Amino acid sequence: MRAEIIAVGTELLLGQIVNTNAQYLAQGCADLGVSVYYQTVVGDNESRLADALQIAKSRADLIICTGGLGPTQDDLTKDALAAFLGQKIVTHQPSMDHIEQVFGSRGIHMVESNRRQALMLEHSDPLTNDAGMAVGIALTQDGTHYILLPGPPKEMKPMFDLYAAPWIASKMSGVHPLFSRMLKFAGIGESTLEHELLDLIHAQTDPTIAPYAKESEVTIRITTRASSQAEADVKLEPLEQEIRSRLGDYIYASVDVPIEQEVIRIMKERKLLLAAAESCTGGLLGHMLTAVPGSSAVFRGGIVCYSNMLKNKLLDVPMSILEGAGAPGAVSAETAGILAEQMRLKADTDYAVAITGVAGPDESEGKPVGLVYLAIACKEGLPVVERLQLSGNRDNIKLRAAKAALYQLWKRLVV
Amino acid sequence: MRAEIIAVGTELLLGQIVNTNAQYLAQGCADLGVSVYYQTVVGDNESRLADALQIAKSRADLIICTGGLGPTQDDLTKDALAAFLGQKIVTHQPSMDHIEQVFGSRGIHMVESNRRQALMLEHSDPLTNDAGMAVGIALTQDGTHYILLPGPPKEMKPMFDLYAAPWIASKMSGVHPLFSRMLKFAGIGESTLEHELLDLIHAQTDPTIAPYAKESEVTIRITTRASSQAEADVKLEPLEQEIRSRLGDYIYASVDVPIEQEVIRIMKERKLLLAAAESCTGGLLGHMLTAVPGSSAVFRGGIVCYSNMLKNKLLDVPMSILEGAGAPGAVSAETAGILAEQMRLKADTDYAVAITGVAGPDESEGKPVGLVYLAIACKEGLPVVERLQLSGNRDNIKLRAAKAALYQLWKRLVV
Repeated sequence: MRAEIIAVGTELLLGQIVNTNAQYLAQGCADLGVSVYYQTVVGDNESRLADALQIAKSRADLIICTGGLGPTQDDLTKDALAAFLGQKIVTHQPSMDHIEQVFGSRGIHMVESNRRQALMLEHSDPLTNDAGMAVGIALTQDGTHYILLPGPPKEMKPMFDLYAAPWIASKMSGVHPLFSRMLKFAGIGESTLEHELLDLIHAQTDPTIAPYAKESEVTIRITTRASSQAEADVKLEPLEQEIRSRLGDYIYASVDVPIEQEVIRIMKERKLLLAAAESCTGGLLGHMLTAVPGSSAVFRGGIVCYSNMLKNKLLDVPMSILEGAGAPGAVSAETAGILAEQMRLKADTDYAVAITGVAGPDESEGKPVGLVYLAIACKEGLPVVERLQLSGNRDNIKLRAAKAALYQLWKRLVV
Repeated sequence: MRAEIIAVGTELLLGQIVNTNAQYLAQGCADLGVSVYYQTVVGDNESRLADALQIAKSRADLIICTGGLGPTQDDLTKDALAAFLGQKIVTHQPSMDHIEQVFGSRGIHMVESNRRQALMLEHSDPLTNDAGMAVGIALTQDGTHYILLPGPPKEMKPMFDLYAAPWIASKMSGVHPLFSRMLKFAGIGESTLEHELLDLIHAQTDPTIAPYAKESEVTIRITTRASSQAEADVKLEPLEQEIRSRLGDYIYASVDVPIEQEVIRIMKERKLLLAAAESCTGGLLGHMLTAVPGSSAVFRGGIVCYSNMLKNKLLDVPMSILEGAGAPGAVSAETAGILAEQMRLKADTDYAVAITGVAGPDESEGKPVGLVYLAIACKEGLPVVERLQLSGNRDNIKLRAAKAALYQLWKRLVV
């Protein structure tokens, strides 16, 4: 089954709100095994909505509309669909009773327009609204299925999950649902990763392989249709193992979690403590770690040693290393190593991470933008230092440096 | 001018990511005076993208596509548009040089597919990518304007603002351009602010007033069309003064800058130094301050005293205050004051900010989620402490606490 999602609302076209409904419904369709080929947004305008319905009908078997079921003048989705299909508008009496009862129980006068929320098409099934007053609609005409849902997410989501999704499933006998696995990568770029898997990507039919990148992390999703989880596993497992045999060193999770969450999980399980000395990232690594609920069991805190003065005073990096002709400087392997080791000692933790680099926009100490040294200290042995040359603007470099530090730490924990 | 926004990406159709690009571009078009009639989402599929372009061409003068400019096999937006328009694909040499230089400076092997990011159409203008490698495109053919932007928001936003928006504006002769003023508010919520301005908002025709909130800051934008800046100023100035007479205490800037940037600007001008002691924000305040280029002239750094151990060891808060029956605890005015004062002394700065609170999801020390104490220490007098009860989830509370600290600091600086 091919679906199109149409979100109706001028506020979306003006950019006043984000179309989160489309994402929710797209996920819901994927879970049902329905392929979404297009999403459309159209304003509260009857003729343009009719045009959108006409186009959608030409390329989809299932059209899901959200928005425009409310009481006001610009809520016209039901009228537009009725005109488009040549159907009459009728009242759904149980919904009308519900609306009157809601106003009655609140003891307030009901503005007449609220009755519009109980309307449905003559030949349609009502979809109950457990979180509001506007009734939804499901119907099939000329082989095309139509579903109208309210716009507010708190009404739309339960109506879709409880009533629309089962209605759709009932029209899909014989099609198996989709099963997916996620593989989360760190320490490798999207293009390198794809290069390593190019033959698999080119040959993909079933399961399918989809890579995508966000926030300096790459995700691979492998997906198949099957009648059961067990049947899906038989198809997905060999592909996952093949990917792992090539790139397993970079896979830190098989669920969609950021690497900081995985690091916290592992360290919490092993009762390990962590601290961070941050120069160019300015606190971002600490912010990412403390975004994970429960991180206080692992992360003791750290020092944002943005200036040389604090590198020296709070973390004992000698001024002779930081400044002066021939000195390694603040952005150096020497400084990174001392920061990590001293941070670990001062916070009395099992591990400490240090990051020092040039975030830009200007070079520093004659060193180029994007040059970053990471160091990880632990109880045994000397700190391990890595040199990176990162690209991007100031924000990118800070984020990539923090993610790279988390990847290095994760590798130390799992190897 | 009528626009259509086409977002290209199978990950959108699968519901893996939210289409925030469409909102950003819709706002950008509204600001330019361009009407968006439709938004479309289509997958990484050349023939369906061609169909979407054909439909968009029939109903829009300007088609803005995002996504599919990257190096991988499923990045095919440029190929699809070239085929659709019957144009050749050529290399944009400056972009190719840039890509080679990026890989060269990192000292890593460049996968050949990265060269795809330097491609453009034969008859098109390049749009510079300041935050990535894929060059954008703008062109006009048969009276329709086309713009291709990258998918990652970090690349798309600056390319739109700096290069695409001016290009669009240059095609809009005959329509008076829009002139806007921004008023940036901190320390006041959106609904309170709107309540104070309700009569002005209801009466608006020209100039228009639009409030919007993001990242715990509220912005009021007042806009008019005019033939010149001078003509616009005559219309905008009285309205700005009326707003300032009601809410001037909360307005920290009249350009769209975050409050951290304004704080850095003022302190840099006055040669003042700053440090931060962060508990519940975990480094977020430092991250926000160091996101401002040039912040190293003001921000010396700080201590992320996430654990009581570090509050005690690095910032000298007595354990008798932090723990034990009847002690004020880590989340208290006493602790906040000591953190700020000790931070200022250790970093030898003019000002220091301290933040300690309960970010959640669970209460702490028997204190409720969202309780936060802020303290600001300066050279003269005792630290000033403020108690806040913030709402929202963990992320919201961290962000609101950091923004509130910046607002308090800004007030101290300007009063």
